[in-house]
Amino acid sequence: MSDISVTPAPPYYAVIFTSHMSKADNGYSQMSELMLNLAAKQAGYLGVESAREGIGITVSYWSDLQSIKNWKANSEHQIAQHQGREKWYQQFKVRICKVEMDYSFTKDGNLFDT
Amino acid sequence: MSDISVTPAPPYYAVIFTSHMSKADNGYSQMSELMLNLAAKQAGYLGVESAREGIGITVSYWSDLQSIKNWKANSEHQIAQHQGREKWYQQFKVRICKVEMDYSFTKDGNLFDT
Repeated sequence: MSDISVTPAPPYYAVIFTSHMSKADNGYSQMSELMLNLAAKQAGYLGVESAREGIGITVSYWSDLQSIKNWKANSEHQIAQHQGREKWYQQFKVRICKVEMDYSFTKDGNLFDT
Repeated sequence: MSDISVTPAPPYYAVIFTSHMSKADNGYSQMSELMLNLAAKQAGYLGVESAREGIGITVSYWSDLQSIKNWKANSEHQIAQHQGREKWYQQFKVRICKVEMDYSFTKDGNLFDT
């Protein structure tokens, strides 16, 4: 289960990956975990947040655009992307975004803007 | 249950709202539905995608920054935001992003970049 990512002050980048699965599993869970672990080792990786409830939403955070391009081109990730299109996803959309502002709230009273 | 939002060609804006709830419901579901319906009526609104699985992720899409500011300042939404901090959320983070690129995949073979 993912947590709210601790990210530096903006600007940084977000990749919003929204999907509908076609097959329930068929190796997806294993590959997903492998890719989350591999992503976390990449230069420029800042964090990931993920939830599935009918629709799946995974947001990964990166320091810069080049890091996102490098991760997309990573050879193991390429294999996963290919299998994703072949086996697991009915539909997906990828949005590459520059995070310009952010702010946070925690119940203990720390309302802070970055 | 939300679907993958149909958005225009970039640039446009995304608000990534990531949260942990403290109370399961206590009026949250009703307010959430009310706010989703109200957001959809605002100028500049493009769509919303939402899933909760431990962490809650709601991404709303907007044509421009001013529309996001207007929605944040909307008086009914202000009441909901106040109740959110008082009653429902343990923690949340809001990220305001400019969507610079996007691309989509559908299983029927339409791989298209915008």
